[in-house]
Amino acid sequence: MSSAERRYVITLGCPDRSGIVAKISTFLAEFGGWIVEAAYHTDRDTNWFFTRQEVRADSLPFDAAELRSRFATVAAELGSRTDWRVSDTGVPRRVVILVSKAGHCLYDLLGRVASGELDVDVRAVIGNHADLAGITRAHGIPFHHVPFPGPGENPEGKDAAFNQIRQIVDSHHPDAVVLARFMQVLPPELCAAWAGKALNIHHSFLPSFIGARPYHQAYTRGVKLVGATCHYVTAELDAGPIVEQDVIRVDHTDSSADMVRKGRDIEKVVLARGLRWHIEDRVLVHGNRTVVFH
Amino acid sequence: MSSAERRYVITLGCPDRSGIVAKISTFLAEFGGWIVEAAYHTDRDTNWFFTRQEVRADSLPFDAAELRSRFATVAAELGSRTDWRVSDTGVPRRVVILVSKAGHCLYDLLGRVASGELDVDVRAVIGNHADLAGITRAHGIPFHHVPFPGPGENPEGKDAAFNQIRQIVDSHHPDAVVLARFMQVLPPELCAAWAGKALNIHHSFLPSFIGARPYHQAYTRGVKLVGATCHYVTAELDAGPIVEQDVIRVDHTDSSADMVRKGRDIEKVVLARGLRWHIEDRVLVHGNRTVVFH
Amino acid sequence: MSSAERRYVITLGCPDRSGIVAKISTFLAEFGGWIVEAAYHTDRDTNWFFTRQEVRADSLPFDAAELRSRFATVAAELGSRTDWRVSDTGVPRRVVILVSKAGHCLYDLLGRVASGELDVDVRAVIGNHADLAGITRAHGIPFHHVPFPGPGENPEGKDAAFNQIRQIVDSHHPDAVVLARFMQVLPPELCAAWAGKALNIHHSFLPSFIGARPYHQAYTRGVKLVGATCHYVTAELDAGPIVEQDVIRVDHTDSSADMVRKGRDIEKVVLARGLRWHIEDRVLVHGNRTVVFH
Amino acid sequence: MSSAERRYVITLGCPDRSGIVAKISTFLAEFGGWIVEAAYHTDRDTNWFFTRQEVRADSLPFDAAELRSRFATVAAELGSRTDWRVSDTGVPRRVVILVSKAGHCLYDLLGRVASGELDVDVRAVIGNHADLAGITRAHGIPFHHVPFPGPGENPEGKDAAFNQIRQIVDSHHPDAVVLARFMQVLPPELCAAWAGKALNIHHSFLPSFIGARPYHQAYTRGVKLVGATCHYVTAELDAGPIVEQDVIRVDHTDSSADMVRKGRDIEKVVLARGLRWHIEDRVLVHGNRTVVFH
Repeated sequence: MSSAERRYVITLGCPDRSGIVAKISTFLAEFGGWIVEAAYHTDRDTNWFFTRQEVRADSLPFDAAELRSRFATVAAELGSRTDWRVSDTGVPRRVVILVSKAGHCLYDLLGRVASGELDVDVRAVIGNHADLAGITRAHGIPFHHVPFPGPGENPEGKDAAFNQIRQIVDSHHPDAVVLARFMQVLPPELCAAWAGKALNIHHSFLPSFIGARPYHQAYTRGVKLVGATCHYVTAELDAGPIVEQDVIRVDHTDSSADMVRKGRDIEKVVLARGLRWHIEDRVLVHGNRTVVFH
Repeated sequence: MSSAERRYVITLGCPDRSGIVAKISTFLAEFGGWIVEAAYHTDRDTNWFFTRQEVRADSLPFDAAELRSRFATVAAELGSRTDWRVSDTGVPRRVVILVSKAGHCLYDLLGRVASGELDVDVRAVIGNHADLAGITRAHGIPFHHVPFPGPGENPEGKDAAFNQIRQIVDSHHPDAVVLARFMQVLPPELCAAWAGKALNIHHSFLPSFIGARPYHQAYTRGVKLVGATCHYVTAELDAGPIVEQDVIRVDHTDSSADMVRKGRDIEKVVLARGLRWHIEDRVLVHGNRTVVFH
Repeated sequence: MSSAERRYVITLGCPDRSGIVAKISTFLAEFGGWIVEAAYHTDRDTNWFFTRQEVRADSLPFDAAELRSRFATVAAELGSRTDWRVSDTGVPRRVVILVSKAGHCLYDLLGRVASGELDVDVRAVIGNHADLAGITRAHGIPFHHVPFPGPGENPEGKDAAFNQIRQIVDSHHPDAVVLARFMQVLPPELCAAWAGKALNIHHSFLPSFIGARPYHQAYTRGVKLVGATCHYVTAELDAGPIVEQDVIRVDHTDSSADMVRKGRDIEKVVLARGLRWHIEDRVLVHGNRTVVFH
Repeated sequence: MSSAERRYVITLGCPDRSGIVAKISTFLAEFGGWIVEAAYHTDRDTNWFFTRQEVRADSLPFDAAELRSRFATVAAELGSRTDWRVSDTGVPRRVVILVSKAGHCLYDLLGRVASGELDVDVRAVIGNHADLAGITRAHGIPFHHVPFPGPGENPEGKDAAFNQIRQIVDSHHPDAVVLARFMQVLPPELCAAWAGKALNIHHSFLPSFIGARPYHQAYTRGVKLVGATCHYVTAELDAGPIVEQDVIRVDHTDSSADMVRKGRDIEKVVLARGLRWHIEDRVLVHGNRTVVFH
């Protein structure tokens, strides 16, 4: 969205059948709704229909709450399995970012926010190390240091740390929880609590090189491209629905340290794209696959 | 389209206003039309609306002619400037290909047709040289050799040659005239006669390196990527609406001959993509820009 | 190599130490050897040195056999583990191609050979199906149909078929055996016999999606890019040294059949690049990784 | 360079002839020089030879000054046109950055420096607007605001502003002057004074869309990819030797504002790559082309 004009974004998924588009577009046309952007998709394998519609807020004679109330009737006519939401671009999106020591994704996100490119309200940054406190606070954003016990020591400490993180995160009611190279594996209960809004950046072209040290794995296998994957976090490690991926070329002159360096440029743009699409309600999840209306 | 099922493809462009989608989708829903694929776009600068819809032929109670007749009424209600067509995937698309000596694009197209990937009826290949007669005929396709006078000699000969080409081409009523590295500049009257169906592959990333020897120009300028552009032919050289472009990396070790070689791989895939989208009615031209619903 | 001038290509690998380049370049300079292209690399992890040098044949006062004889002395001084060869671009490279039903890689390779882009002598094409006999013979190349038993039937028949293939292949003393979407897994003894010269194209971005139906696996996982990998064949399935890889973007609108179609364009260029580099002695294998001096 | 070990970097260009590599490598081997990385290239058109060699500092029995003194003799033997330098990775590289209002390139460079990825000493940032003073100073770097007169008003003011910039820049004796989306055209005398060390990022895939508002030009032409170019600044606008380029895909759904946004991600990585290669002495300029040994 290049303009600041306020819009309502309708996203909907339901079993496909004839007449869905007619029903939705007729509903909107009836009230003079001006559709600025519309996308439709049907998944043939599951016969599932998806749509996303951006409507100019000032073209409708009612507000978002009333739109939700009225659209609920339309959605109900499309069957009980219909999954839909209406969001309002006039309400700022809240984001909390989790980090460890590596700063390239955080620097990149903060730069995008500061320059006005990414229109989100970063409520807090939480780190299990304190390295990135300075740059976070220089941007006027609170930084919380939640230390984790080292490997093998004090397993209860880890649970306590995650509880502390959860309290901070949940207090902000975020639209997105961004794991910006956060090096701790979320426990299943957090994966469940933040389902559909926790975005991770994994530093490989998944499903290659799941788990730890993917660039080292890539080096050992001798691949000719390295990549990064932005995906929703689920209880199964690095197996959640993929939002975006990209790759960059490497060759025999690149050590695994060079791959780490080159990969950073991919990680940060892939994460930034994924986050943008998520907060603009462009990503519809169905099973373990995503429809991305970008 | 991965399935062979028959479809009607509706493409339409008109000034944007509220209710267009409702009107079209309601028309189709009324007759039980099953929309298999639908795409919409509004160009903000010109306030022009575009759509393309694929409808299963067996879901409608009438044939393509009747669909055209009935849809004409809908289109008329959208204003006098509305531009639309209905095509039928059950009717094979006819293609004529123009070539010179370089065979990489022709080899590639013939291979795609022979393997069933590209569902077109190649009616004829015409060359101003005879080098590619053999491979053409090995595929069971007629080859016509139409020699051109050399530079500086016999200007009337060129007109005569183009007249001969025009007669051959027009006798096949082609849906696409493909200039697959045909090294002659079409005269304005042929550009006009074949407007919107003559596709050229230019061996540069336009608008860089218009005209002759683009790879040599690219080498001299020291660019780090070379590209190719598939565009509709218009009277202004290499300035027609762009359908598709792509690039490949080169470096200082590449001579201009190496750039020629590397560029071929881009030329052939860019042309093949452009031709596929054209014959599937995925390309809508507006002014000098294209909307490509791929 | 864009010119047809004859060259000797020296490739060498040995433990790294000071003075290797001085030794080789002094040897060549002593006889007036004109180095047209030279590349060096040291792998830090294994401390292994690699070089490839192209020398104009007409700059040396002796032939390839004499060069080999004299260079053997230089190589011996670099230690007993030195691995080297001298090849002569004046001797045509022999290739045998194995195929099944899918023709896109074969069409592409034959087109490159016919147009003079790929300077190899294709001695034979062998198919476990006969579908590609026509196009092969249209290019004047012998086609051998070696049928395989179906799954579950007659296991001895498979051994016999591979024996027949081995006899045909070995009778041509090929520099490369190209598995151009050959759908049978080579038995270990053939992997061993053709080690370092059997090139496969796998239709995924390895190590993702090893084995059968990689595009279907890719579709199910919901990846946003699909790829192809050219690698040397080893006894472990899809695990040999990687020569080249590339990817192409897909999205939610692509069915697995669409991924198959888009992937073909990547498969054929990746295989063609890998084969070119192999026959030009640009690929040096060390352990399970490759150095590619392209 | 992934390790912090100190190295001497020798770069050399001279007319090609037999024996150059032997001469240099023998010189280094004589003193036990351990070549960590070496690259060679010969430009066929101009018959010019290029090399870059990284030698471990601790492998030589003398310091950089002595190496320069001794290597001068070797270079002299290669002819009077030989162009060479020896640099020392132990001496930090100094950089001055020029900006206007757009911050994406500056944010990116500062993040790379802060995270230790880019090993340079940013001495100062100079802006013709003050927008980026805050982030610069948050990184502990001096920011100089040098206002420029508006278009049409007070032409002497522009000269004065450039004089002021020149004094600031030259006082730091920088190895690189980075125009990170600086929107003023350097006067010819500054182009001359900073020849070979002023790097610009142009927001198009040059030579397409030279001059102002390249994304708007790209939108109007309807291209399917937009790009960015890092080049040395010369007196002819946007025509200097190209160091690096890259592109990103756009389509009909992208307004020119969207192209601006997508293009930023390419601009910043292309500039960062170009700057890295420049300060590591990987870029050798010859005429208007570059050899980049990356």
